[in-house]
Amino acid sequence: MPPSPPDRATPKGDDSLLIVLHHDATEADLAHVVQRLRDIGADAHVSRGRTRTIISAVGDRIRIQQLPWEAFPGVERTVPVLKPFKFVSREFQSGDSVVQVGGVDVGGGHVTVMAGPCAVESRDQLFRAASAVKKAGAAILRGDAFKPRTSPYSFQGLEEEGLMLLAEAREEFEMPFIAEVLDPRTVELVAQYADMIRIGARNMANFTLLAEVGKQDKPVMLKRGMNATIEEWLHAAEYVYKEGNHQVVLCERGIRTFEDQTRNTLDISAVPVVQRLSHLPIIVDPSHSGGRRDLVAPLTRAAIAVGADGVLIDVHPAPETALVDGAQAILPSEFEVLMDEVRALAAALGRDVIG
Amino acid sequence: MPPSPPDRATPKGDDSLLIVLHHDATEADLAHVVQRLRDIGADAHVSRGRTRTIISAVGDRIRIQQLPWEAFPGVERTVPVLKPFKFVSREFQSGDSVVQVGGVDVGGGHVTVMAGPCAVESRDQLFRAASAVKKAGAAILRGDAFKPRTSPYSFQGLEEEGLMLLAEAREEFEMPFIAEVLDPRTVELVAQYADMIRIGARNMANFTLLAEVGKQDKPVMLKRGMNATIEEWLHAAEYVYKEGNHQVVLCERGIRTFEDQTRNTLDISAVPVVQRLSHLPIIVDPSHSGGRRDLVAPLTRAAIAVGADGVLIDVHPAPETALVDGAQAILPSEFEVLMDEVRALAAALGRDVIG
Amino acid sequence: MPPSPPDRATPKGDDSLLIVLHHDATEADLAHVVQRLRDIGADAHVSRGRTRTIISAVGDRIRIQQLPWEAFPGVERTVPVLKPFKFVSREFQSGDSVVQVGGVDVGGGHVTVMAGPCAVESRDQLFRAASAVKKAGAAILRGDAFKPRTSPYSFQGLEEEGLMLLAEAREEFEMPFIAEVLDPRTVELVAQYADMIRIGARNMANFTLLAEVGKQDKPVMLKRGMNATIEEWLHAAEYVYKEGNHQVVLCERGIRTFEDQTRNTLDISAVPVVQRLSHLPIIVDPSHSGGRRDLVAPLTRAAIAVGADGVLIDVHPAPETALVDGAQAILPSEFEVLMDEVRALAAALGRDVIG
Amino acid sequence: MPPSPPDRATPKGDDSLLIVLHHDATEADLAHVVQRLRDIGADAHVSRGRTRTIISAVGDRIRIQQLPWEAFPGVERTVPVLKPFKFVSREFQSGDSVVQVGGVDVGGGHVTVMAGPCAVESRDQLFRAASAVKKAGAAILRGDAFKPRTSPYSFQGLEEEGLMLLAEAREEFEMPFIAEVLDPRTVELVAQYADMIRIGARNMANFTLLAEVGKQDKPVMLKRGMNATIEEWLHAAEYVYKEGNHQVVLCERGIRTFEDQTRNTLDISAVPVVQRLSHLPIIVDPSHSGGRRDLVAPLTRAAIAVGADGVLIDVHPAPETALVDGAQAILPSEFEVLMDEVRALAAALGRDVIG
Repeated sequence: MPPSPPDRATPKGDDSLLIVLHHDATEADLAHVVQRLRDIGADAHVSRGRTRTIISAVGDRIRIQQLPWEAFPGVERTVPVLKPFKFVSREFQSGDSVVQVGGVDVGGGHVTVMAGPCAVESRDQLFRAASAVKKAGAAILRGDAFKPRTSPYSFQGLEEEGLMLLAEAREEFEMPFIAEVLDPRTVELVAQYADMIRIGARNMANFTLLAEVGKQDKPVMLKRGMNATIEEWLHAAEYVYKEGNHQVVLCERGIRTFEDQTRNTLDISAVPVVQRLSHLPIIVDPSHSGGRRDLVAPLTRAAIAVGADGVLIDVHPAPETALVDGAQAILPSEFEVLMDEVRALAAALGRDVIG
Repeated sequence: MPPSPPDRATPKGDDSLLIVLHHDATEADLAHVVQRLRDIGADAHVSRGRTRTIISAVGDRIRIQQLPWEAFPGVERTVPVLKPFKFVSREFQSGDSVVQVGGVDVGGGHVTVMAGPCAVESRDQLFRAASAVKKAGAAILRGDAFKPRTSPYSFQGLEEEGLMLLAEAREEFEMPFIAEVLDPRTVELVAQYADMIRIGARNMANFTLLAEVGKQDKPVMLKRGMNATIEEWLHAAEYVYKEGNHQVVLCERGIRTFEDQTRNTLDISAVPVVQRLSHLPIIVDPSHSGGRRDLVAPLTRAAIAVGADGVLIDVHPAPETALVDGAQAILPSEFEVLMDEVRALAAALGRDVIG
Repeated sequence: MPPSPPDRATPKGDDSLLIVLHHDATEADLAHVVQRLRDIGADAHVSRGRTRTIISAVGDRIRIQQLPWEAFPGVERTVPVLKPFKFVSREFQSGDSVVQVGGVDVGGGHVTVMAGPCAVESRDQLFRAASAVKKAGAAILRGDAFKPRTSPYSFQGLEEEGLMLLAEAREEFEMPFIAEVLDPRTVELVAQYADMIRIGARNMANFTLLAEVGKQDKPVMLKRGMNATIEEWLHAAEYVYKEGNHQVVLCERGIRTFEDQTRNTLDISAVPVVQRLSHLPIIVDPSHSGGRRDLVAPLTRAAIAVGADGVLIDVHPAPETALVDGAQAILPSEFEVLMDEVRALAAALGRDVIG
Repeated sequence: MPPSPPDRATPKGDDSLLIVLHHDATEADLAHVVQRLRDIGADAHVSRGRTRTIISAVGDRIRIQQLPWEAFPGVERTVPVLKPFKFVSREFQSGDSVVQVGGVDVGGGHVTVMAGPCAVESRDQLFRAASAVKKAGAAILRGDAFKPRTSPYSFQGLEEEGLMLLAEAREEFEMPFIAEVLDPRTVELVAQYADMIRIGARNMANFTLLAEVGKQDKPVMLKRGMNATIEEWLHAAEYVYKEGNHQVVLCERGIRTFEDQTRNTLDISAVPVVQRLSHLPIIVDPSHSGGRRDLVAPLTRAAIAVGADGVLIDVHPAPETALVDGAQAILPSEFEVLMDEVRALAAALGRDVIG
């Protein structure tokens, strides 16, 4: 059980910010900054070097970091000492968080495989996929009922009917399911059906949606925005966490770069970097990062070997007919072979695969 | 008056897609692709080269582009011939669109300056800023009542009270105003007060929000997402346009790159590139792209010279006390000097400044 | 033995380029392009669609791709059908190349570990490192005598003295070594001592250097430039290959992105992407990509699992005292543990570790 | 006359580096860092905050910044206080540098236009271009005799013959010329003919070449690498400067981003950012950044308006026949119209155009 943050409280301050003055800043510039810090109840430690004066601001980091110091005369730049997130950090909680999804653990050293079709298209398609992934050893079913499509003309999902099919599949195959939410107005609907709700990459910085999800009592998977730094991603997780929902799992799915052989560039280093900064579990999506079926197996292997807590994989019984992202879905038969590799790699590293 | 697209219609097809086969693709692979095209009512023109066979698919581009061709055996890659957007393209409408914002033109060769505080903080702050920008020659007032903040602990805006203050300032200073929308649930509220509603960079791919805004009868400014290609941005504009709202203005505000001296990298080339691809007006935000007060004037000058239809500038009577983005706001006195430069540059290029 | 390309020959042409005309291109524009193609001995297949005419140019791809088609009236854009590289492609040679480095294989399904200090600093430092990596199971020693340093004030390497120490270590520990070349004027010197010469990321597009290296009879490792696409990287390999040196190994070492938690973003997907496009071996540098000691082990594991032919690792007996890149070097004791993981992962995937 | 840096001297130290310790660093960790600083003759100012201890290192910044502090136990990260460059900074010299190129000023508030063909292809082509740009008002002729080509099969330049033609054109049209150097072995040759030597974007971090150029007594133009941060670019300029060549002009030519409508993304903000950090002149290359003929005019206008000291423009009498980069060259007639706009914009901003 993680220590509970005070409900919507402002974290107490610490060493917050270094304010570096220009080499030609005046004494008045310095006094001005110091006075402004005192106005907001913060301490200022002034350190005069040969060419630079540095003010170390100590106090409530939120109040301090909110002021536009770079707009003050004589200020060259500021350097935050503490990260902008707190509750999701290793400093706040040193041990790993484990998130329970309908009885299945995510985190804590296990490997949890989530698989299924990108979008629910029909009962038949979903059940064929679910049956196959269950048999091959997946622990959680994926399948979306609401799809964010770049084109206004594309298939947008089966909506509530899709959620009902997923719930039916859950009973049939005895595996919890995860589904995406897109709209603050349908968060409750999705949360009512799903075992885990997912915030997609496009919505990672949709604070309206984050706030709604933060109020639900369901585990949340937060995908990294394709343009988000790791710090911003953890910041978004903090948003959800602070609203009261501590069951957050992160999912790396690639960032946008100049390389165009892959849809996005999977930032595999993000896994160990996040594990050092945060106690939240982190998994990898090898399907959407590459956008190519032939990359799913090697990227899944890399994810397991790098130490991710699991993977999220698109499996479709007939990718050619998929209404969404067919080019990246693998076949049930390919998934079966891949699960053998996942188990072999996990065993080689002394980890167990759930399911 | 732009030609009206059929309400929520699917555009009729044309030459849509080139499907390039692998050098070792079989005749069966070829036949399979051709059959699948015929299944969806499209024509297939097959061109056999020495090492590659290329299929040119002609028909409904939406249906054609939706199929996961890369998942077909023997397919190497696909090359879209037509852009994924249609109604916002120069091919659909060759002449420039002009959008009217409370009686003020945006587009059509004029230069329209929008200025004011990033966030409405108080009646006094707003009115001091509005009075100053009006006097210096701005045509439209900016000011937000809802703010998307990276941190859950930051100031989130005055909400409806802010909108009422903006409406009051509109009367007082006789200038229409633009304000941001964040949440599909408050789109109607903002649209009720504002003369133009703005979709911020973080929400450019928030299709839920785009759809709501597309149903309003108010001009929309669509900022470019910081990770969006120009094509994706025009695609998002198509989303709004197709829902029935044709009064769309684009706003370039910088993209995310590795350079860290500026908050984002202003993509100044996007202005002429967009003007070639689309008939929509395009303006530039020199404040949020750089994130630095000292860059606002040079980037504004660049925007006017490159041919933008206007600029959107943060002006704050006391940047040091700003609750949001103070580091990039310029003072009313700086704005006054800048407006002189804007007028001189516009005159040198034979353009007029509205207001 | 790979098939030999004709010495400095121009590859014979094939289907080379699609030239897409604007929707408003005239018949004269079309005739002009076709004539120009004929002028250079190429064929033009014209395909008229409903809104676009597409010319498929067949012939010598070099001559065709060199012409500035986008500068021709009526041309919208061009789409290369064939990649800009040929001899390093899977089409030219379908089987994997294996490169021999002083008797050690790189490629062909084996895992080859190269390790040692980033820079040779002294006999003692080099020998301690070499002894340790040999004992732990590395197959090839790394160590540089010439260093490209961002700062003109930094340590630039021991130069020839460093090469002599490396040659001495080779005898002592019975392992071939790899060293970097920076300057076309010292290529012969390095090639005279080293078993494999390395072109660093900063020099990937230094064609002067590539040409010199292409004339040597020593295996070459070509690191990916931090801003290079995979296609450009293979293009650089083609440069070396075509000069007559076919013993080329690629090394992925991260690309520049907006993420700043790591020095560069390791593009782990590049490994399977390259393996599909090219027959050349590819290894991964987990030390320079992350720039952080704590990432070396997880990234090495990811590299092995994704299917790389090996890794290149910085090991230093006392990283704190390293003159170059100490922050990323691991200790001999850490390397020993890591080699156990490498062997376990390779075994799990049915691969063997050389050495 | 700028103050002269001591020849190849190490700059004297100042406040150099902040070393931030982990929240759980021990007293021994702290003592270790302090001792190591003293070992190299530096002072350590220790500031203990509530959760972080920060060590401010004062002394020789080169020696201090070279140590791998992140490899020390207990160190979280370091923050450089002083920039890695010194002689090219505004702190070293507050007034603008003006560089003389064959009697023509670059910098100091003037606008200097350099124009001509990308590559010298023949006497006729060069002379037609030179005659046209001279007549339209360009001050310096551009034209390259050595070309760095991505493909080993492309035209590589006329070499010395090209330089002789340029020298002939200089006499004929009375304008100095600028040409690129690629290889340290031909630097002297190019410097012997040209009035200004250029280091291309691909070679910005080719320190071997920078060192050679730094020894010449000819003005140098240093293009920004397409993956270089502004700090790294100034660092490269420092490299040249410190070798004794102070006649350095910077040239912004776009950086690599995910946007693919343009070859590179012109970072127009780099102009004012550099002008604040450095005293060196800075110009813009609107031809190579966009890679598109239709963008040359708008980007040139943006460059002048943003405050650049000049532009470098590809002009070709027959772009369709250009052997290099024809797609971006403008016609003499287009250049003439553009020069009128340049003069109008410069006049509007109170600046004069040289030539």
